[in-house]
Formats: sequence, structure tokens, C-alpha cells
Amino acid sequence: MSVNVGIVGFRGYSGVDLVQILSRHPEVTPILLEHRQDSSERPQPIGFTGPERIGANVEAMVASAIKAVFLATPPEVSMELAPPLLDRGIKVIDLSGAFRLRTAENYTRWYKEPHSAVAWLEKAVYGLPEVNRKQIPAAQLLSNPGCYPTAANLAIRPLVQSGLIDRAAGIVCDAKSGVSGAGRKPSLKTSYCEVTENFSAYSILDHRHVPEVLMVSGLDEGEFSFTAQLIPCDRGILETIYFRAPGIKDASTLAQIYQSAYRDEPFVRLYAPGVVPDLRAVQRTNFCDIGFKFDPATGRGVVVAAIDNLVKGAAGQAVQNMNLMFGWAETAGLL
Amino acid sequence: MSVNVGIVGFRGYSGVDLVQILSRHPEVTPILLEHRQDSSERPQPIGFTGPERIGANVEAMVASAIKAVFLATPPEVSMELAPPLLDRGIKVIDLSGAFRLRTAENYTRWYKEPHSAVAWLEKAVYGLPEVNRKQIPAAQLLSNPGCYPTAANLAIRPLVQSGLIDRAAGIVCDAKSGVSGAGRKPSLKTSYCEVTENFSAYSILDHRHVPEVLMVSGLDEGEFSFTAQLIPCDRGILETIYFRAPGIKDASTLAQIYQSAYRDEPFVRLYAPGVVPDLRAVQRTNFCDIGFKFDPATGRGVVVAAIDNLVKGAAGQAVQNMNLMFGWAETAGLL
Amino acid sequence: MSVNVGIVGFRGYSGVDLVQILSRHPEVTPILLEHRQDSSERPQPIGFTGPERIGANVEAMVASAIKAVFLATPPEVSMELAPPLLDRGIKVIDLSGAFRLRTAENYTRWYKEPHSAVAWLEKAVYGLPEVNRKQIPAAQLLSNPGCYPTAANLAIRPLVQSGLIDRAAGIVCDAKSGVSGAGRKPSLKTSYCEVTENFSAYSILDHRHVPEVLMVSGLDEGEFSFTAQLIPCDRGILETIYFRAPGIKDASTLAQIYQSAYRDEPFVRLYAPGVVPDLRAVQRTNFCDIGFKFDPATGRGVVVAAIDNLVKGAAGQAVQNMNLMFGWAETAGLL
Amino acid sequence: MSVNVGIVGFRGYSGVDLVQILSRHPEVTPILLEHRQDSSERPQPIGFTGPERIGANVEAMVASAIKAVFLATPPEVSMELAPPLLDRGIKVIDLSGAFRLRTAENYTRWYKEPHSAVAWLEKAVYGLPEVNRKQIPAAQLLSNPGCYPTAANLAIRPLVQSGLIDRAAGIVCDAKSGVSGAGRKPSLKTSYCEVTENFSAYSILDHRHVPEVLMVSGLDEGEFSFTAQLIPCDRGILETIYFRAPGIKDASTLAQIYQSAYRDEPFVRLYAPGVVPDLRAVQRTNFCDIGFKFDPATGRGVVVAAIDNLVKGAAGQAVQNMNLMFGWAETAGLL
Repeated sequence: MSVNVGIVGFRGYSGVDLVQILSRHPEVTPILLEHRQDSSERPQPIGFTGPERIGANVEAMVASAIKAVFLATPPEVSMELAPPLLDRGIKVIDLSGAFRLRTAENYTRWYKEPHSAVAWLEKAVYGLPEVNRKQIPAAQLLSNPGCYPTAANLAIRPLVQSGLIDRAAGIVCDAKSGVSGAGRKPSLKTSYCEVTENFSAYSILDHRHVPEVLMVSGLDEGEFSFTAQLIPCDRGILETIYFRAPGIKDASTLAQIYQSAYRDEPFVRLYAPGVVPDLRAVQRTNFCDIGFKFDPATGRGVVVAAIDNLVKGAAGQAVQNMNLMFGWAETAGLL
Repeated sequence: MSVNVGIVGFRGYSGVDLVQILSRHPEVTPILLEHRQDSSERPQPIGFTGPERIGANVEAMVASAIKAVFLATPPEVSMELAPPLLDRGIKVIDLSGAFRLRTAENYTRWYKEPHSAVAWLEKAVYGLPEVNRKQIPAAQLLSNPGCYPTAANLAIRPLVQSGLIDRAAGIVCDAKSGVSGAGRKPSLKTSYCEVTENFSAYSILDHRHVPEVLMVSGLDEGEFSFTAQLIPCDRGILETIYFRAPGIKDASTLAQIYQSAYRDEPFVRLYAPGVVPDLRAVQRTNFCDIGFKFDPATGRGVVVAAIDNLVKGAAGQAVQNMNLMFGWAETAGLL
Repeated sequence: MSVNVGIVGFRGYSGVDLVQILSRHPEVTPILLEHRQDSSERPQPIGFTGPERIGANVEAMVASAIKAVFLATPPEVSMELAPPLLDRGIKVIDLSGAFRLRTAENYTRWYKEPHSAVAWLEKAVYGLPEVNRKQIPAAQLLSNPGCYPTAANLAIRPLVQSGLIDRAAGIVCDAKSGVSGAGRKPSLKTSYCEVTENFSAYSILDHRHVPEVLMVSGLDEGEFSFTAQLIPCDRGILETIYFRAPGIKDASTLAQIYQSAYRDEPFVRLYAPGVVPDLRAVQRTNFCDIGFKFDPATGRGVVVAAIDNLVKGAAGQAVQNMNLMFGWAETAGLL
Repeated sequence: MSVNVGIVGFRGYSGVDLVQILSRHPEVTPILLEHRQDSSERPQPIGFTGPERIGANVEAMVASAIKAVFLATPPEVSMELAPPLLDRGIKVIDLSGAFRLRTAENYTRWYKEPHSAVAWLEKAVYGLPEVNRKQIPAAQLLSNPGCYPTAANLAIRPLVQSGLIDRAAGIVCDAKSGVSGAGRKPSLKTSYCEVTENFSAYSILDHRHVPEVLMVSGLDEGEFSFTAQLIPCDRGILETIYFRAPGIKDASTLAQIYQSAYRDEPFVRLYAPGVVPDLRAVQRTNFCDIGFKFDPATGRGVVVAAIDNLVKGAAGQAVQNMNLMFGWAETAGLL
């Protein structure tokens, strides 16, 4: 029997991917929840019928027997919409940054605005399955990780946990993202003529995704340098991560660290030492691909991690979390 | 009275830019030197007449009163063509990597082939004017810097020379280049369908441009981590450079370091602290633009340097060097 | 019970799409047939296992119980490989132009080379299901249509058959294709730096796909003007088709012409009058989308047809044809 | 002695090109006229000083001895700003569509809004120098042609004037433009993720540039079919034009038609029969390049015309017109 799930923000890039994944998912029926019609939709052929649409109000959702709602909305909208749904027993999977950090103070520091749903902050479960799989099934409010932190944490956490890297020397994460990561709302920064044949850095050292990496990886702020950059492409994140590990004697040690971390993970793929993924390897998939190069003579290491920012970095991981929350196969709808 | 200068490799991307710059240069007349016709040229309108063309043999060049030759050729071709020209008193400006390093051993280590013109290795002058301006006028064989090292050295050398950075923690240079840096010869790696909507890393930690950075910046190999990456765009290099400098107390110290290094440089432009250049700022110019962000609380710094790989990274800098070698205005033909 | 099917040319762009579609197809097991290893493959993660691989020789195929072979090869290779397979009762689905035209003379005129498998020319079935569905099930040698003609014929044939257009005034098909249509073999014309930020026309009035359009649409050569053009994008074909129909009094007449032609077609989608598809509508799908604009006052009409050149224009249509040849659901593996 | 000229709309794409061209122009000093600060400017390096800036009010312009003003503004702004300038004897070169058509009725039909400066409509001189050179020097109000019509008219007018084409069969102009043609104001249609890897048609048969083509070429509306399309690139227009000319017996007749039309034109370049330009040939130049293919057997012809929409299609042609209006060399600042 199919479970009804709702999507708010179905016109945005993450929302469009969510609708597409959920429409093919064996366990659910997606319903579009109209919140604000502030963006146009693509023209459709004659005879096209997408999912059912209802208004994004709680009574309508209850009447439609919606069991879970995906919020593909800005943080301030998620903070407004999530509590009444949760109060009525509807599970919420929030794709925004609203509930990712643990305290209102930290949220305000990085997002530069007050938090308006503090009571739910501590109840939210951070949905990075590879780290947090046991907590996810019980989640009422699932906070889906940010796109940059998903790749960064999957690449960095095993290094930190191994105890073999020189944290004092710092870890550098040079991150690059396709333009869809900035959302569908038109802006000069994401206009075609500004982006094509260009490449630019932004939010150097102070991107709002940094605290997620610190929280999950265990690094201190002074140990972690992060720069976000815009690739002239639609989708995909590639992060080049630099570390120093004088204590590691050969690449196979590193290989073992990653293999023991991800041996049984359905959505993390590893490469032979010296081989690294590109964006093409992961676009339109829910995989996080990780490869590395290590120079034993000097202890310098470089890890390359790649995801699709809209899939493993957003819609796909949200569905992976839904699968865990409902007890379905973790990969349902995602392979 | 115009000076005749020759170009070998005028069909490649650097060569095309060279011809264009030299054709507008107030002091010279370019002559195309036909070496191997292994690449096609673009169709031209009726009535088009480009520069004169002669064969790339020494006698013809002497007969045409050519005073300097630009070699926009692979290293093995430059090693073959340069010595006979030099022997006849024709100045050579080599855009390849053939004469950039100081010893044949080092060349062989990084270029994976023997050096066939060792006698000229030590006589070559490395043409980074901002560092080496005094040596350039006397050069017979001018070795034009690599594209990645041009930006890297201009950004890193002042930091190293300041003595204020933590070298033991390492300096990271995460470099990105447009596809023209790989040359005009067709290959799968530079095919449109492989590059568009993709982003990929290559030559991690062992790019052949690394020794140039060590040579000029003064860093040791173990202190410098370098990754080259391919941007889905035509031209431009952007390098994001990470360092730690616990001894620097505020951004203005960094600003002073760069300003005192480049105050009088016609082709280095600096930005206010926190502002960094993108590729668009430098494309089709001979500028190297440098900006930075610094966090005094933790001593972490990020420098962004941008050049056009075909101009300041190749043809433009070659003309800048020619100007110095002939005693012309350094900016002639370049603004 | 799964049917074994082979693919020659699995490293090319059409081949990669074929393998991907067949790997998810409910009725078949794909086997890669190694013919010439003249192109590299992408690096794969640890543990990756693709389809089985065997040599592209007939005995091995018979031994592997292969019932059909897809040839994603150049015409001259298809002419060489197809006959021995057919002689052993293995069905062949040829994606090249080798068997699309009806006579060797016509082939030689357009392909500028002799035909080396003339005996099979007249036995081949041209696999455009929307036109030729009844002939396809009995085909031994199925000739998969060209990419441009697929869109052109689906858009033009109903107009010609209606008898309402002014053929003497001519029909113009201005066709644009993504770069993958030129194949994966590196060439200057498909190099990134030559294509990006460019747009170019080629094969004006004499493209080798023209005779397929004449054959299927019923137009005479003098009635049909065709230009192929390269879009700076990876995949997709959009054709803008101009006609004059003074006898048509309103757009609804045109709408009826298309609806009666394609009402029951699973892979042709129509749009409301005045609405036309873009490439995005069809990329990575097997659909041909058709929309039009008509000006009743002057009888001028414009039809826009879009397909993915690698799917409906190659691999997808080949699988659609396979489905018909084996009596499976026509849409199997394609939705 | 340098002449002061002003630019309103200097932040838009045409405006940026105008400022760049005028800054290098030997006869003028550009002054930026601040009208509405509704768009951001790019960050600049330390020490950057651009042209002087003053408010876009008439008194300030008179005080600054501004002799001509370029309006790189939307039509409704041009209609508002032009009259008071003209009344004070300041020449106006308007890049909008406000003054291109001859009657308010026609303007309203195509621009869907009333004309608010009708008195100046008939005094405006349409500035296509290759057609209208004699009228331009006396112009007070110069109306700069649209980008699409510039290429279309230069390609089509000689054909129509030759009297050799079959007008009843119609002329098709399939036009493609880079995204900068849509201006710098952010919109969903020009967002990177909507444009990249896409190709789309718009304003089929009813683009507001159509009446300019009819006006200059002499064609009737029913004889001319025009479709505008968006190329995923920044700048450049390529138009593929189809005609039928049963009376033309060979390509050389066509070649003569174009050569006699443009033999002495500094900014029109022709190609040998069968050779056509691509966008790369004209980007960042003021040239209109024209090539053609003709099939004498059937009388079908195809012309390809290419311009840079921001240069010959806007800023460059505006400067060409200024040169004529002030009696300077027509090519000043443009080669």
C-alpha cells in the first residue's frame, strides 16, 4: 500500500529532483504542496498529468493522509512550516539549513538571523546515514545535510577518526559546485552570462556550511579551511581536500581507513589509490565517490570527493533518509 | 623601424594569441614560421591577408632579418629548434617547459624524458618579470614561465619572503584551468562532451609545473601541495591558495606585503582585503589579479590569484619579456 | 528468461547509452562485444563489474547464445560485421547509416564510398516505429534511423501526407545538434575550445541524412532544404521546420493532423498550438516532442521537433525496435 | 581635442561594451550618466578609476559639455530621456527599439505599448550604415538597429534588390543568439541552469525585430518567416537564411551580388562560395560576416550571417554611427 508524502518547494531544483525520484519510488505517492506560487513551471505536453496538488496547509495534508513532508524551502520557511506539521504527527524531512546545527546561537552566528523554532532544534536528527544511521529511524524531524558538508564529512571524518592526520597543520577543503546549488530564484550571480566561461570563489572561510563539517568531522574551526566556488556547470560538487599525515607510511593505510569506514555503504564508492572521481561519475546518482593520492615521502595527501549536489547533496539523500525512517530498503527508488 | 619577429607554432592556442598581440604591437612585424603543418586553420574571409609566412629554417630567418623567435611548441621541439637559432644570434623566447628548470636531472624527473639541449639550460633566463626583471634584458634564451607557476609564484613568493607564514604546516595551491591550457591537439580529455558539465582533477601532487613553483617561491617540495583541475571553460586560471600565518595579526599586514611587492608592477593588480578576482577579471588581459581573505583569530589565510593562461600565462608574458629584452616599454602591445 | 544481446561499439556515446538502457531492461542481458579497443573507458570505482565481455566474433556469440547484436559502429564496420551474424541467424540492429537507404547507388552518392554488403540492403527494415511498425517484427536486419531524420520525419511526414502544404515553396529544416552526435573520436571540430561559446553550420544542403528524410517524408530533393548545426551542448537535437500552407485556415487543423498521426504513440508528445519544446524536455528520454506555431493570415507555419540524439535518435530507438522485433512491450526499458 | 560623450545604461551588457570601446576611441572622452542604480557592478582592483560619472540630467550634461549621449536603455526609458536631450542640442544615439519603426501604430503593434515620443519618431535616422550611410551624418536622433535585423538585413537586402529570388516562396530566417542579447537583468529564462545544455526557440513568427527587417529589406510580412532562438553561449548571433532563386544559374552570380553590395564596406566580410562563418569569426568585433551555399540544380540557397550581438548588433554599430555623425573615420575605435 502506497504511502502519501508531500513536497513543499516542488518548483525549485531540489524539489524537481525530489518529485522525479518519488514518482518512481515503489513505496510512496508524492503530492505537491502549493505554498507560494512564486516561480514558473516548464510547459508540458498535451495530456501530461503530474502528481496531485493540494495547498500546503495542515488540515489538507491530514485529510490527504500525508505521512511525511519534504520541505525544499529556505530556512525561514522551514522554521515556519515544520512545527505545525510535527505537532500533528506528520514526519518532516527538511532540506534547508534550519535544523542542522545544535544551538540557536550557532545558527544565528552562521545564518545571520534568529532561529524561530528553537524547541525543535534539539529534537532534529541530522540525516547523514553513513554516520548517523541508527538515530534516523526514530526521527520525527529529519534535518537533511547540506550539500557541501555531505561530501566533506564523508571524506574527512574517517581521516580525523583514524587519529593519523596532523590536525594542527590544518585540513583544507577546496569545494566547487555547479550553479543549481544556488537555487532556482533568478539572480545576477547565477545568470548565464555571468557564469559561463567564468569561475569564482565565494564565502571564503565563512560559508554557512562550515559548522556542519565541524560538527560531524570533529575538527575545530581553526583546523579547517573551506572555500566555496562556482563551476560553470549545472550540477555536481567536487571537493579537493588536503591533509598532512606524517604518520601514514603508505597509500594502503589510507585505503584501509576508507574501506573499513564504507565497506558496507550502498552509496559511497571508493577508487584505487591515485584514481579520483570527476563530476561525471556521480551526476544524477545518489553516490558519493571518494578517491585519493598520497605521497608517503612527505606525508601529503589529497582526497577528492564528488557528489551530485541535488541528489546525494539534497533530494536523493532526503529519500534515503525517508527510506530509513519508514523501514524500507535504504536504496529504494535510488538505484 | 619595425623589428621582424618569428613565431613557430602559430596555429596553437598560445600561438594564435601571440600573432594577435604581435600584429598590434607598435615595434614589431610578426612573421609566421612554418614548421609542421599538423593542424588546420580557421577559414578566412575573402581578401584576408595575415602576416608573411616562411619556413622555420635558420637561413630563411636570417634572410628575413628576424631578430627574435617565439617557440610556441612542445618542449622536445623547442630543444631541437632553439640551439641553431641562438647560435646565429637570433634571440629565442621559448613558451615550452624545455628551459625552465635549472638542471637536466630535474627536467628528466618531472618531464619524464631526457633533455637534449643541456648546454643551454644554464644560460636560459626565467622570464617572470616581477621577480627577475633585471636579468631579462640580457637574455639570449628567454624561458617563459608556465601558466600555473606564473599565478602561483606571484601569489606565494611574497608570503614566503615575508617570513611570516608557517611553512611546516604547508601551503596548498588548488589550481583550476580552462581547457585551452591543454593545447589545440585533439584528445579525448579535451573533447567537448567529456569536459562540459564536468570538473576533474589531474596530476595531483606531481604536476610538471610544481618544480617551477619551488624554484621561484623558495618552498621545499614537502611544503607545497598542488592539484591541477580542468574548468569547463576556454581560458583562464584561478588558483586558491591556503596558508597559515599565526604571526600575522590582521589583514592589513597581508595587504602591505602584497602592496610592497607589486606597487609598481604594471601587470599585477591587487584587491581590497576580502575581495577576490574571478576569471572574468583577467580574461584576454595580461594582468595577474590577486585578492585574499584572512582570519586573524586563527591565522588562516586564503589567496586567490587569476590570470589568463594564454596571455599572462603564455603569449602576453612572452611579449612582456620581449619588450624587456629589446628595451621597449614593458607594456607595449599589452594594454 | 533473459535473452542475451550483444553490443559492438560500447565505448562510443551511443554505445554507452545502449549499455545503460539494456542493463535496466527487464527482458535482456547485455554482453559487450570487443571489436577494436581504440578508445579508453572511464575509471571505475573499486568493485565495479559491468556486463560480461567477449570478442566480437561469431562463434563466441553463438556460444554465448546471443540472439541479437547492436552495431554502434561506423557504416563500413557495420557492413563488415552484419552479414556473418545474419547468416548465423543472429538478428542485427545497426545504428549506422549502412543499411538505411534502398540502393547502393544512393548510398554511394551520399556516403561517398561503395557499399560492401549490397545483398542485405534490400532486406533491411528501416526502424522508425511510428511509420514502419508493422514491418519491424519480422526484421532480421534492422536499420536504425539517423538522428536528424528521426525528428525531421516525425515532424514533416504528417504535413506532407495531409496534402495541405505548398510543396513547391519548399520545406526548410534548420537542424541543430549537440556535439555527441559527432561521436566520441577526438577531432578538432569537437574539441572543447572550438565548440564552447561558438555555433556553426555544416553540411549545408548536402548532409548524408537528407536522403532518409526524402525517403520517409515523400518530399523531392528540390523541395527540402536542410542545414545541420552544432550547438555548444552535449546532447539533444532541435529542428525548426518552416512550411507554407495557404490552404490551412487555423491552427486547430494542424493540431488535428499531428494528433491523428500520433494519438497512440508512446514516444511522440505534442504541445498546444503556439507552445514548442526545448532540448531540456527530451534529454535522456526516448521522446520526440513536437510543437508548432501557425499564422493563418499568411499560411506560414513553424514546427519545432526535439529529441535526444543519443536516445530516440540512436540507442533508445534501437531498443524500441528490439522490443518490437522480440514481441516485448514497445516501451520496455525506455520509460 | 576630445569630445565628451555620455552613456546611460553603462551597467548593462551593451553599455559595458560601449564604455570599453569609447574608452579606447581616439576622439572622445566617455562620461557615465547615472540614471537608476538598479544593478550591481563588478568589483575592481585597488586604484581602479573608470570614466567620470555624473547624474543623467540635462543640466549636468550641458555643464559637462556632453555633445552626444548613448542610450543603452529599454525603449520606454529612451522615449523619456531622448527628447529633453535633443531639445538642448545634444545628439542622441539610441540603442533601444524606441525609434526604429516609422509610425506609432507599427511600434504599438510590435512592442505592445503606446509610443510616448511620437514627434521624434519621424525625425529619427535608422543607423544601418551599409544601407543608410548618407542620412546618418545629419542625424540628431540616431536609432541604432536591432541585433537580429542588422545581420538579417545585411544578408537579405542584396538578395531582394537583385530581383532574382522567388519572394512568393518566402524567405526563412532562422536566427540564434547568445544570452547577452536578453540583457543583464536577472530572469529565469537567462539563468545559467535553464540555459546550459539547452536550446530553445521563442517569439516564433512574431518577434519585435521582424518589422525592422521588413522595413529595410523590402519584404512583405507574408514573405518572411523568422524564429529567434537561444544558444547556450554568451555573445554572438548566427542567422541561417533560406531562399529559392530558380533564375540564378550558379554560385558566382550570388557572389557578385554580395560583392557589389559590400565591396567597399569596412565591416562586412564575405566568404568564398560554400564557406560560411561561425560565431567565433565575429565575436568581439564589429564585423558582419556573410557566407552562402547554393545549389544551382534546384535553385535552393542558404546564407549564413554572423555578428557579435553586443558589437555590430549594438555598441560597435552605435560607435560606427557616432563616427559618421561627427565626421570621423568610420572605423575609429573599432578595429
